[in-house]
Amino acid sequence: MALASHGALARGGVNRQAFTAVDADARLQLMAWAAESGLEPSIDAIGNLFLRLAGTDSTLPPVLTGSHLDTQPAGGKFDGTFGVLAGLEALTAIQARQLSLPRSLELVVWANEEGSRFPPTTMGSSVFAGGMKLDQALAARDDQGMALGDVIELFLARHGELPRRDFGTPVHAYLEAHIEQGPVLERAECSLGIVSGIQGLRWFEIEVQGQEAHAGTTPRAARRDAQAAAMRIAMALTRYFEDEDDIARFTIGRWQVQPGSPNTVAGRVVFTIDFRHPDAGALERMGDAIAPLCEQLAAPCDVLVQELSHSAPIHFPSAIRRLLTLAARDAGMATLELMSGATHDAKWLHTMAPTGMLFVPCEGGVSHNQAESAAPEDLRAGTQVLCNALIRLAGESGAARMPSSQ
Amino acid sequence: MALASHGALARGGVNRQAFTAVDADARLQLMAWAAESGLEPSIDAIGNLFLRLAGTDSTLPPVLTGSHLDTQPAGGKFDGTFGVLAGLEALTAIQARQLSLPRSLELVVWANEEGSRFPPTTMGSSVFAGGMKLDQALAARDDQGMALGDVIELFLARHGELPRRDFGTPVHAYLEAHIEQGPVLERAECSLGIVSGIQGLRWFEIEVQGQEAHAGTTPRAARRDAQAAAMRIAMALTRYFEDEDDIARFTIGRWQVQPGSPNTVAGRVVFTIDFRHPDAGALERMGDAIAPLCEQLAAPCDVLVQELSHSAPIHFPSAIRRLLTLAARDAGMATLELMSGATHDAKWLHTMAPTGMLFVPCEGGVSHNQAESAAPEDLRAGTQVLCNALIRLAGESGAARMPSSQ
Repeated sequence: MALASHGALARGGVNRQAFTAVDADARLQLMAWAAESGLEPSIDAIGNLFLRLAGTDSTLPPVLTGSHLDTQPAGGKFDGTFGVLAGLEALTAIQARQLSLPRSLELVVWANEEGSRFPPTTMGSSVFAGGMKLDQALAARDDQGMALGDVIELFLARHGELPRRDFGTPVHAYLEAHIEQGPVLERAECSLGIVSGIQGLRWFEIEVQGQEAHAGTTPRAARRDAQAAAMRIAMALTRYFEDEDDIARFTIGRWQVQPGSPNTVAGRVVFTIDFRHPDAGALERMGDAIAPLCEQLAAPCDVLVQELSHSAPIHFPSAIRRLLTLAARDAGMATLELMSGATHDAKWLHTMAPTGMLFVPCEGGVSHNQAESAAPEDLRAGTQVLCNALIRLAGESGAARMPSSQ
Repeated sequence: MALASHGALARGGVNRQAFTAVDADARLQLMAWAAESGLEPSIDAIGNLFLRLAGTDSTLPPVLTGSHLDTQPAGGKFDGTFGVLAGLEALTAIQARQLSLPRSLELVVWANEEGSRFPPTTMGSSVFAGGMKLDQALAARDDQGMALGDVIELFLARHGELPRRDFGTPVHAYLEAHIEQGPVLERAECSLGIVSGIQGLRWFEIEVQGQEAHAGTTPRAARRDAQAAAMRIAMALTRYFEDEDDIARFTIGRWQVQPGSPNTVAGRVVFTIDFRHPDAGALERMGDAIAPLCEQLAAPCDVLVQELSHSAPIHFPSAIRRLLTLAARDAGMATLELMSGATHDAKWLHTMAPTGMLFVPCEGGVSHNQAESAAPEDLRAGTQVLCNALIRLAGESGAARMPSSQ
């Protein structure tokens, strides 16, 4: 609730987009809490923030846990934030018990997971894991034409003087706790989901180029109306992605018209496609159909189709899933295994180290919405199991119990 | 060309939207030129600017001529500006010849003709003529949520201390010169069009309300996707307005999605419709079909249809059309009579006093576009005939000739 005050919206949600002043303010609050438990901060050049609880053997790669603090333009209080605070709570409890663990534990706040201001999504973890070059990330522009490279120095400076972390430093294992953002756990009345993997995701940007003209004098036959052509294309795509089983996820979430004046025929429309599928073959086949369909329907306008990101479906290693199941059993909790519909930073860490995720239910499965909510007892259960699993990974065999006052 | 430097764009056009600093700068330049001919400025509360050449009998209502200086976000150099500068040229020539005319002549710059930042179009002339209340105009908001009432005082102050003009002061007659913004005169190789009337115009704003949701986790069946519903509605409307004769003008020029994030299902879409027709019956019948079609196709979203403006087709009085034809004959020029596809401030003056319009050709009929262009000889012809007609209306019978150096 304290973090949600940074970027609070009228209807209970949060607008804390990546690299903004409120994003930095939320991180400063987190750093203040972490400092009380002696966690040591460092930051990398894309803005990923690390808070380290040192282990007894500094030569061993650390165990990482965390998520993100940036939100959608009209997002909720729990998406990302829960994973960060669960990690903080776990590290705080471990530090308070003075457990002697060989490996260091690091709480990480990945920069720009949402990608709603500067695409693509999961930018910070992608750059850390080597999936994207820093230069490419810094060239991303927001819809006002501002490049990330123009704003990031100010954002980094707001953290104060911190040691600089390199990209790709070795990681022993990564765990991320998150709200499910879907209805499965709530319907099953289960507090804890072990995530089997993440469905595949492809992002496209479609640019339709026509010609501006006067709305009152230009006959339909003489128009190159970018809005009309873009609607024709978008409707055909919408129909193409209407699979019978309702498994494909197809979303047009951004649509910009230039010049955007009611009495001028549009000269240019740019819109985005977010397409996801759990099956690798369908992700390829259906995604590859987008460009030909656009080109077929654009006349008399021109169309440019760019693929902004492309991630195949992934499956987390069975060893980590087993470890999470054992950690839940230690706490006497039932679990459910499920696939993630949303993408997460864990996707990129999966390319570096054994990685796993824990889900807790959220109300009605609603997320990316101001109404996003989750029950305290579910958040507590997820935090407890995360803490148990982190202790196992950092080298201890016994389970810790959260103090009952928390 | 000097006025086009205020708001100049890279591709030769102009972005001089109403009530901006560059809009005020262009007016200051015009006032400086007008001052050289002793024209007396005054301004009304919506920002209409009047520059008066006094007649010999101050008890007689003046003859007005003018147009607008505001442009589309990516507009051209001639739309509106030509009519203002033709009027300035005519009054300057009349003043230089020291013609003794009983009626005063006033050059007027109507505020916010385009309505692209603060809808609706022809706002200034509408308020002057009593078609819209000042309060209603000041409540108009731009797409950043700024109300006109919040910016107009600063805009008025930029003109310096000017006498304040009342709305609805008596007008003897009104003439407006304008580029055609269509292809008729150019194709007929005719420099001068006498405008018979203006086609009808209706503006609508369609607001589709759905629910924001996560793009990766929310099945299609569980979505209330405002973008999907708005596209469905807009495509059905587009098809409905595809008349065989290509006479109806139907344009969706603005389309805004909230929150506008690629991986969030849209919660709200607002788009505009600009619909025009020369036939009064078709304007009513086809325009009235919009709301039922929207309501029929909105589910599972909600839709709100608002009509922002509604002007029936108008026909200028035959006496003014005859006067313009005679003024052209005095200058030895052929004319063509044609209907205006675009709307103009003359529409509102028509409700107050005998009103007429002159058109000159523009290149390829292109307007509301940076490439807008017109030939100097056509602009000169239009200015000459406007001047002749103004002299007739202000009480002189003879025709004036423009000095050959201009």
